[in-house]
Amino acid sequence: MSTITSIRTLDIRFPTSIFLDGSDAMNPDPDYSAAYLQVETDSDDGLAGAGFVFTIGRGNDIEANAIEVLASRFVGRDVEELLADMGATWREMLHDSQLRWLGPEKGVIHMAIGAVINALWDLRAKRAGQPLWQHLASLTPEEIVDLIDLRYLSDALTRDEALDILRRGQDGADVRQRRLLENGYPAYTTGPGWLGYSDEKLERLAREAVADGFTQIKLKVGADIEDDRRRLALARRTVGPDIRIAVDANQRWDVDEAVEWMSQLAEFDIAWIEEPTSPDDVLGHAEIARRLAPMPVATGEHVQNRVIFKQMLQAKSLEILQMDACRVGGVNENISILLLAAKFGIPVAPHAGGVGLCETVQHLAMFDYVAVSGSLEGRMIEFADHLHEHFVTPASVVGGRYRAPTAPGAGAEMLVSSIGEWEYPGGSGWATRSKP
Amino acid sequence: MSTITSIRTLDIRFPTSIFLDGSDAMNPDPDYSAAYLQVETDSDDGLAGAGFVFTIGRGNDIEANAIEVLASRFVGRDVEELLADMGATWREMLHDSQLRWLGPEKGVIHMAIGAVINALWDLRAKRAGQPLWQHLASLTPEEIVDLIDLRYLSDALTRDEALDILRRGQDGADVRQRRLLENGYPAYTTGPGWLGYSDEKLERLAREAVADGFTQIKLKVGADIEDDRRRLALARRTVGPDIRIAVDANQRWDVDEAVEWMSQLAEFDIAWIEEPTSPDDVLGHAEIARRLAPMPVATGEHVQNRVIFKQMLQAKSLEILQMDACRVGGVNENISILLLAAKFGIPVAPHAGGVGLCETVQHLAMFDYVAVSGSLEGRMIEFADHLHEHFVTPASVVGGRYRAPTAPGAGAEMLVSSIGEWEYPGGSGWATRSKP
Repeated sequence: MSTITSIRTLDIRFPTSIFLDGSDAMNPDPDYSAAYLQVETDSDDGLAGAGFVFTIGRGNDIEANAIEVLASRFVGRDVEELLADMGATWREMLHDSQLRWLGPEKGVIHMAIGAVINALWDLRAKRAGQPLWQHLASLTPEEIVDLIDLRYLSDALTRDEALDILRRGQDGADVRQRRLLENGYPAYTTGPGWLGYSDEKLERLAREAVADGFTQIKLKVGADIEDDRRRLALARRTVGPDIRIAVDANQRWDVDEAVEWMSQLAEFDIAWIEEPTSPDDVLGHAEIARRLAPMPVATGEHVQNRVIFKQMLQAKSLEILQMDACRVGGVNENISILLLAAKFGIPVAPHAGGVGLCETVQHLAMFDYVAVSGSLEGRMIEFADHLHEHFVTPASVVGGRYRAPTAPGAGAEMLVSSIGEWEYPGGSGWATRSKP
Repeated sequence: MSTITSIRTLDIRFPTSIFLDGSDAMNPDPDYSAAYLQVETDSDDGLAGAGFVFTIGRGNDIEANAIEVLASRFVGRDVEELLADMGATWREMLHDSQLRWLGPEKGVIHMAIGAVINALWDLRAKRAGQPLWQHLASLTPEEIVDLIDLRYLSDALTRDEALDILRRGQDGADVRQRRLLENGYPAYTTGPGWLGYSDEKLERLAREAVADGFTQIKLKVGADIEDDRRRLALARRTVGPDIRIAVDANQRWDVDEAVEWMSQLAEFDIAWIEEPTSPDDVLGHAEIARRLAPMPVATGEHVQNRVIFKQMLQAKSLEILQMDACRVGGVNENISILLLAAKFGIPVAPHAGGVGLCETVQHLAMFDYVAVSGSLEGRMIEFADHLHEHFVTPASVVGGRYRAPTAPGAGAEMLVSSIGEWEYPGGSGWATRSKP
């Protein structure tokens, strides 16, 4: 038996605004950050669990504080008991009626719940000696359904339907697992498309992306229509007709504006329009999707929880579901979202980039392929090639595909040296910079 | 010219769980709390602005921390400039792209924005020597529309439509203002109906409510159908056929469950079913409303922002809109919600109770009557008779009606003695109790 001895919470920020990595129509100057936690135990195995919420700078302290307050309940608790029933451990946080008032199930408190349960998943997978995707795929359908909370979903997905999906997912799971280990999982890259980049940089990076084996790139749009037309024409000329080009408006528009703007970009053969409007606007997305068809609508990185995703699937608001490892209530809620997507036959193409999103969300996509949807059709994980060097087990993309992680854990653990350098505001990296 | 010299943030909690005031099917043991702030200036007038987020206990520290981080930007700033353009002051917080990531526009960070702008409104109304409702009603339609953010609303409400509504609202505003000062605004009471109360207490309080002049009471439901049937039969026998009885499930059910449960209560002549399911579930509420018709559905106290309300109006998810003073982004966003409700012809019956919700939300309802909807039809403000004694200008309900406040300000200021007693965990009231 072992006990959780401490949960350390850290405010870690990287000064990415200097280079305009990550700049888009709504986020001109992000400092990519992580409200990070480490779960430590008194076990002889010396293993710790890591989890985080990705933010873009100011407010990372608010999120870190929420994690600290929330996680304190687990200090002194029995590790084996918490890890043995991860459904119950998760629901203990989710159903705390007093904390629930702060959401419910959305925003700062919900993301904090996600970070804490993800850190416990990291610890559990490390103890099992498995990468998280393989660890999840090793569970029975019943064990998996016991992890989730079907409240508010039963008009779209019942427990029996979830079990049916997972039982079908067992057929051929071994073969898919082998394929994944051999060939990896498809990726696309947002690297060329940040709004703050010059045309020259866009062209160079787009050419490199094709040379690197990517079959889809993504460009940020929505600040200026003439700029968008020029940049898309340039990108299309550069990559040719066979590479897919998606665009991302980062919630910039209202409904009519989205339709009008995108109609002017349709000639460039758009793979999808991402986040055309508010992530809360189920009906707005549905209207945009209907009017822009056959151009697909994608969204999800800011969708707060399974209830909004359920409605987006019911209302046909999206044709590509972009799950995020840190936005919702962690691995458990993301499993329910994978099951919803499978029920409605919608492919999941996870959001990644940021800090550690590639490292963590790949486990969910690979679990989906092995044990839930069983398919790679229309599926790929976003990739942005920055900040991976701060992780103990950085994501690896080769030839346009994520290599399946084989190291035990959930991929969230940062290097001690990176924490020392970029803890805010005391880290050595910040000592030499003016604070934003 | 004056400057903001400090913004003091306080974690204030009341041990209400001891008496089961406020107990319902989802919240069995709330400790009603306020994450409270005071804006102080160096002006000779000595006026301070007060605002808060209502919470129910644990997590009040998370909310207070968010307010503190958010509000710090205003320390040292010019008061007159901030108060002169409250639209710009609000949007400065709302559109901070880094902070926006923590919502966007929902949960802890969004409620913190609401508390900060509400405190500035309190200060502005005090400086104007007017209660907030009168202060807002004294603005021109253009000034009012400049306060709000129409982003994501234009498919339901344009700037011109908002101006039209407000211009129509000017007709007869003086008469309505006089009537309000003479007769007050209708109230209903939730006092008898908390789930933790005995049948005897329910009966006694229901009888008192009628004697006090209330024409509607509300009962909590959703824990046990037989209990609900017994309590509703008792309440209906006690108050007779002419008093309206609303019920509140506090998000307890899924769609089918809500319809089945409420079908078994329909015989008691239900004024409305409140929060049958997740506040995020626009389509679920719409389905429930359609299947339970003509029984009206009410919701809103947990609706996170104007985008969800917009959809609920578009989808016919609700027949009564229950705005809350502290859940969304403050006075500014609530004005946009009043305008949406007016556009769709849906009455607003604000959520109140808790800590200070009666004191604050009455200003919005009265502003609506004078300057927006111009109507009292189907409209009333919730009233729960507790914790008013902690406020400098407590809400006053006489003969089942809120008396129009005449003291300058927004009603949010707490007594110094109450703060000293119930600041958590250091206040004198908490020193003699075990901490939850």
